Amino acid sequence: MEVVRKNFKEALPLISASIDKADFLVIDTEFTGLINGRDVSAFDTPEEYYYCLLKGAKDFLLIQYGLCAFYWDHNRKCYMNDTYNFYLFPRGKVGTEKMFLCQSSSLDFLGAQGFDFNKVFKEGISYMTEPVETRLRENLLEKQKTQAKEKDAITIPDEHKTFVEDVCNQVRQFIDDNKSDEMEIEKCNSFVRLLLFQEIRARFKDEVLIESKILENKTRVLKVIRIKSEDDTKNYNAQKNEREWEELEEAVGFSKVARMISQSGKLVVGHNMLLDILHTLNHFFQPLPLDYNSFKEFSNCMFPVLLDTKYMSSLPPFKDRVNSSVLQHLFSTLSSKPFSIPTVGSLEGRGYRRADDKHHEAGFDAYVTGLCFLAMHGHLSRMRGEEHARPSATSAVLKPFLSKLFLCKTAHQDSPYMNLAGADPTPSRDHVFHLTFPKEWQRNDINQLFSPFGPVTVQFVEDTSALVALSRREQAAGVLRALQARDGVALLPYSTYKRLIHQTSSRSDAASGDCKTVCVLNTLFMAIAFVCVAFVFLYVVLFMMECVETHFPRCERFPLLDQIFQRFIL
Amino acid sequence: MEVVRKNFKEALPLISASIDKADFLVIDTEFTGLINGRDVSAFDTPEEYYYCLLKGAKDFLLIQYGLCAFYWDHNRKCYMNDTYNFYLFPRGKVGTEKMFLCQSSSLDFLGAQGFDFNKVFKEGISYMTEPVETRLRENLLEKQKTQAKEKDAITIPDEHKTFVEDVCNQVRQFIDDNKSDEMEIEKCNSFVRLLLFQEIRARFKDEVLIESKILENKTRVLKVIRIKSEDDTKNYNAQKNEREWEELEEAVGFSKVARMISQSGKLVVGHNMLLDILHTLNHFFQPLPLDYNSFKEFSNCMFPVLLDTKYMSSLPPFKDRVNSSVLQHLFSTLSSKPFSIPTVGSLEGRGYRRADDKHHEAGFDAYVTGLCFLAMHGHLSRMRGEEHARPSATSAVLKPFLSKLFLCKTAHQDSPYMNLAGADPTPSRDHVFHLTFPKEWQRNDINQLFSPFGPVTVQFVEDTSALVALSRREQAAGVLRALQARDGVALLPYSTYKRLIHQTSSRSDAASGDCKTVCVLNTLFMAIAFVCVAFVFLYVVLFMMECVETHFPRCERFPLLDQIFQRFIL
Repeated sequence: MEVVRKNFKEALPLISASIDKADFLVIDTEFTGLINGRDVSAFDTPEEYYYCLLKGAKDFLLIQYGLCAFYWDHNRKCYMNDTYNFYLFPRGKVGTEKMFLCQSSSLDFLGAQGFDFNKVFKEGISYMTEPVETRLRENLLEKQKTQAKEKDAITIPDEHKTFVEDVCNQVRQFIDDNKSDEMEIEKCNSFVRLLLFQEIRARFKDEVLIESKILENKTRVLKVIRIKSEDDTKNYNAQKNEREWEELEEAVGFSKVARMISQSGKLVVGHNMLLDILHTLNHFFQPLPLDYNSFKEFSNCMFPVLLDTKYMSSLPPFKDRVNSSVLQHLFSTLSSKPFSIPTVGSLEGRGYRRADDKHHEAGFDAYVTGLCFLAMHGHLSRMRGEEHARPSATSAVLKPFLSKLFLCKTAHQDSPYMNLAGADPTPSRDHVFHLTFPKEWQRNDINQLFSPFGPVTVQFVEDTSALVALSRREQAAGVLRALQARDGVALLPYSTYKRLIHQTSSRSDAASGDCKTVCVLNTLFMAIAFVCVAFVFLYVVLFMMECVETHFPRCERFPLLDQIFQRFIL
Repeated sequence: MEVVRKNFKEALPLISASIDKADFLVIDTEFTGLINGRDVSAFDTPEEYYYCLLKGAKDFLLIQYGLCAFYWDHNRKCYMNDTYNFYLFPRGKVGTEKMFLCQSSSLDFLGAQGFDFNKVFKEGISYMTEPVETRLRENLLEKQKTQAKEKDAITIPDEHKTFVEDVCNQVRQFIDDNKSDEMEIEKCNSFVRLLLFQEIRARFKDEVLIESKILENKTRVLKVIRIKSEDDTKNYNAQKNEREWEELEEAVGFSKVARMISQSGKLVVGHNMLLDILHTLNHFFQPLPLDYNSFKEFSNCMFPVLLDTKYMSSLPPFKDRVNSSVLQHLFSTLSSKPFSIPTVGSLEGRGYRRADDKHHEAGFDAYVTGLCFLAMHGHLSRMRGEEHARPSATSAVLKPFLSKLFLCKTAHQDSPYMNLAGADPTPSRDHVFHLTFPKEWQRNDINQLFSPFGPVTVQFVEDTSALVALSRREQAAGVLRALQARDGVALLPYSTYKRLIHQTSSRSDAASGDCKTVCVLNTLFMAIAFVCVAFVFLYVVLFMMECVETHFPRCERFPLLDQIFQRFIL
């Protein structure tokens, strides 16, 4: 089911019911970019991985959200899916103007998949974080309390006086004529509108109401409405207040769905879901914390039972049969023996069917992820002789996979997951070295250098440096001794390299961050030093005078300089 | 005429011809955002105005370009328009991945005008600056020169060995079977594709060619092609090189049109065109300079004859009759007496007609701007008795308006334009004051404070400060004396306020920017100071020893300390 701005309000109860009856939920998202800044390196820790993605998750926008609720149909004896494909776009209406970043390649990719950008920007459902929502609610409450007060008057500049008078005369005419109940004032810029608003309110307070109306095409006009009874004013104000609250609710929008998912406490499944979770937390709950452990706590608190099918498929018994865990490839692998995709139905218009084939639409990808999950869960259950078990967050079968998000870029280096509910893997990096090499070197020269120790993985850092990892890790002990003495190359253990990098970055942080403190201390020190320098200067001058007086060679009253003079100069 | 990626190449000669035959060109653009950072204040100088817009012009993207060429039809005795509405989107294909910023309100606005975002992201024509183009041309030349060399080998990790062997066996089979000329390898991730590419090239070098192909939906597959003769390889390489150059030309894309406009040297008209010019220069020519005077030079060099219809309409004889210079309002004003919009035709499918009504489509807005320009030019010519004059960059009628871009946010404070071809206006700011006031004050309190000096314009800076400008400028002299002594308020002349702001910002620039230099100097100074301090310390110690030796009260060998000692301590 496609959900956009105009059907969001009516879809909300359906969504709530789907979440309530679901055995598990599957999510998938699309964003305007992936990485902003340094990309993850193959040897990064889960914590470094988080810091690499953090900036992107804050700067890029979430524009599509797929939510697929799988529930058991007792009559049909099969799973059913209710799937929602939401188009999202945070609107500035209530003062939540948003600046966001896009990566051209990401939009290009989405475009090639047939992604509908017009639906995003024209019909997207708004969203906001909890702190923003709280602030807006407080502001609106305050505004409605104080709106009875008169606004401050703006002086009418001379060049607009004639026009304002003209319009006021027209309004007078409209009131006196008593032919129609509304009149519109067009063709004025925003400043003139403000002046008219103020003047008409002041002059015809009890006769007309005035409101600024935004037409469909975003043109603003002023509407003057005749007051026919005192109730008119009251009703008008009450309606206006109500409309403002409705607008606020609409602006909170999709965040409500995200919070329902969180509050359900149900198993939430995703495929390669780290970025999905980062964006979900950052855009609908709170800005992502800068500290990794706070993030883990925050995430585990909002989504205590997560399962990443990409991680699941990277472990036995799936690992050996899954060549590529790209979602479509995984689905195709799990469609053939010894695996099988179970039958999953859907009510007309409420979910997807396998024939739909809408890859990279968030809703469809969530649905396919759910099918993969059921196939892998079924396979594991059959292996344990539990033929007809339904997935459950508390089942032993799923326990090894829970709260572990796949880290595709470090998986090959023993850091395959981020554990949101406990300690992360801490793989050894003893087999990794930082190599500085001559400018003309290519990958082959590095392979050559390391050839006595078997094959290596090379990741270039700069033009003349790279991280090099041995495939035969047990060989690591001999590398430094054997290669360090080579001409033109310099080799560091990975741990030393990381320590140096860390020191450099914290030193430059200190240099820029604490510059003020340093400057104050310097000034203080310079004052003291200045006194000393003055003292020395005076001493030298007196010494010279004494020298001149006594015509050399000895100036006994200045023993220090005298000694220096006697020993080194004369 | 709508121009997108697929018809750009064939449209290019038409565009070139339109520019050649035109009397004048009109441009209009749409971007993904307007202001990033501080907005312009009403009292800013043209230079400060530039700095306010600079960041946005660099960070936001240009997504639509309207170019309207007006040429004289001697048979019909009227102007004709050839108008092109270009959808633009810089693609990452040749390594020009672009990060760009969007402002949600801007996209919301464009969306409401019926803007087609899908055309931008899916069919947009690419573009790039000249330095990027030069670099890419050099890179490609270098790449094609060196591509004959063998690529460096990547070690095949153990887990992929079986799969790679399997595929190589399939390729062997394909070669031996000799049934078809092509075979595709699917379902592998990017790393496995790289391994296969390398292995197949190495093992079957003379039997097959291998290429990585991107399908319409951005899926990549490997294609293995049978080599039937030696020419196959040569042709294949020649074709590949040619394709790469074509791709580069496509990526340069719209920049070619922008450069044609510049090279034509013709009169270029726009409405409120400062941002249009900033984006045009920054995206198709060179990144905007950080220095204002360099920008003026650069701009004047690229577009020597510019005319801004918003500026034109703000001067007599139009000023008094134009209430709002919003393009649509201006057009409507110029449609009625004493003005008149001339008849402008177009060839079928090549230009707009007045009935089209596609406001906020860049091409249509350029067309309407051209009509407004012709109407205003006609009016001026008629006033001079030159009934049938055609606009010309050298005519006296247009001279006062050339190279002056309208500054809408400072126009009311005597700074209505930026003069690209000469000195900017330097309006007095003697009537402006910086006021610091108590927290609970509102606009009315400020009006009250200044009431002895007539009406004021107030622009809030922070919660407790504002810039206040007198309408009766001649009163300025008395303000400071009369109001400075008031309790709770502080008043500064605008010039003093600006100087303070400037000092603070340059001081903090120095503090952060030159921190390194300062640190080096400090270290040097500290070394000298340390020697001096050591000297003084030694002196004091020797003095003490002498004192102890001579049991006080006089230590004649240390005259300086002795004197201090005798005078101040004993």
